[in-house]
Amino acid sequence: MTNPTAAMLVIGDEILTGRTRDSNMHFLTGELTRHGITMAEARVVQDDAPAIIAGVNALRASYDHVFTSGGIGPTHDDITADAIAQAFGVRISQRADAMALLAAHYQRSGMPFNEARQRMARIPDGAVLIENPISTAPGFTIGNVHVMAGVPNVFQAMVASVLPRLTGGAPLLSQSLRVDRGEGEVAETFGALAADFPDLSMGSYPFVVNGAYGTNLVIRGTDAGQIAAAMTRLAALFPA
Amino acid sequence: MTNPTAAMLVIGDEILTGRTRDSNMHFLTGELTRHGITMAEARVVQDDAPAIIAGVNALRASYDHVFTSGGIGPTHDDITADAIAQAFGVRISQRADAMALLAAHYQRSGMPFNEARQRMARIPDGAVLIENPISTAPGFTIGNVHVMAGVPNVFQAMVASVLPRLTGGAPLLSQSLRVDRGEGEVAETFGALAADFPDLSMGSYPFVVNGAYGTNLVIRGTDAGQIAAAMTRLAALFPA
Repeated sequence: MTNPTAAMLVIGDEILTGRTRDSNMHFLTGELTRHGITMAEARVVQDDAPAIIAGVNALRASYDHVFTSGGIGPTHDDITADAIAQAFGVRISQRADAMALLAAHYQRSGMPFNEARQRMARIPDGAVLIENPISTAPGFTIGNVHVMAGVPNVFQAMVASVLPRLTGGAPLLSQSLRVDRGEGEVAETFGALAADFPDLSMGSYPFVVNGAYGTNLVIRGTDAGQIAAAMTRLAALFPA
Repeated sequence: MTNPTAAMLVIGDEILTGRTRDSNMHFLTGELTRHGITMAEARVVQDDAPAIIAGVNALRASYDHVFTSGGIGPTHDDITADAIAQAFGVRISQRADAMALLAAHYQRSGMPFNEARQRMARIPDGAVLIENPISTAPGFTIGNVHVMAGVPNVFQAMVASVLPRLTGGAPLLSQSLRVDRGEGEVAETFGALAADFPDLSMGSYPFVVNGAYGTNLVIRGTDAGQIAAAMTRLAALFPA
């Protein structure tokens, strides 16, 4: 059985101008890997409706799940919800369920529930809300697309709200061996081992420490027995 | 005059399995911003030839420059150079200029210039080499695509080799104001200011410190005078 696939669409000028270094992609990738969903592609686009629409439509047609981050706040540059509605060809409005959540939140906190904040209740028709235990303003799932906030702690909380709903596969397992030899010296032997285990994925990652070359050899797969067999062979090929 | 546009294609299973957190995208974005080239999109794909070919062909048709990272080392999972040759429909072979560079490097270092290392001399026909002052194995430019290593210090050195060749525009400038109010309270006023300066880009980035809400308001553009005028208005709208 093959694991379900996923892609991520990171939305935001702040990433593409270098102001902010994205951390959500790395977080989501780790969570999906543990849940048995393969992260197959990620894209970063500007706060630009045509770019968001093209990105989400390409990815939702190619993968089982799409996760977006960013652009669902109260300000003029938060255009994600409207762009997603356009991508799906559905209407968008301030929905009663989201309005009720936000109204209660701002009443509790004593902050005005003004027009800008009411924008955060704009939800495309047919979407299901994603709970936001940090700051209330919800994300939403429409079709196979999960639309979430860009602020990392809110993004992480929304991922925790969504993931239990999704059917995963076997978690991706990995083991690695560090060898004190350059990548070019281990390449042939390692490539031959990889060819013997077509169901596993093997990657090599070179490094230099104090001028000495080394390589981390990583074996990934979903079958713990096969990984163990490959690691035993690998350790014999490159004794310490 | 509009600045040239660029996109990045990050190639590597290690990013999409969560093993490694990519740092090259953030680095390149900062360098391009200073050089007056707009980073418009970024994609991350697996070590998979069809995915690399589809990504590079989509991006090179849409943007002035494409920068790739990863997959040009000596091992079996390093398939970027061959995939790029396929994307351009050109032949690839161990080219004499790259072979000479590598042969001299391994002779100096006393390490064997074996078959795996000779793979790093595979360069698509018509490409121009990109110098690698760290570990010699070159990157290459073909058409508007710049193919570079994934190891961060080598990637950074290759960017330094490539950027002086490229015509940039006006560097993107930015200024920001931190206000001790939630994003929802500044949204309306900030949106109105943004509407008054259509040539500038304004973004708001909320944060929470010790339970108190705040927002960073960022103004970006290439005209220092306009940015200064907008910042003066912004400071008056949100006095400390």
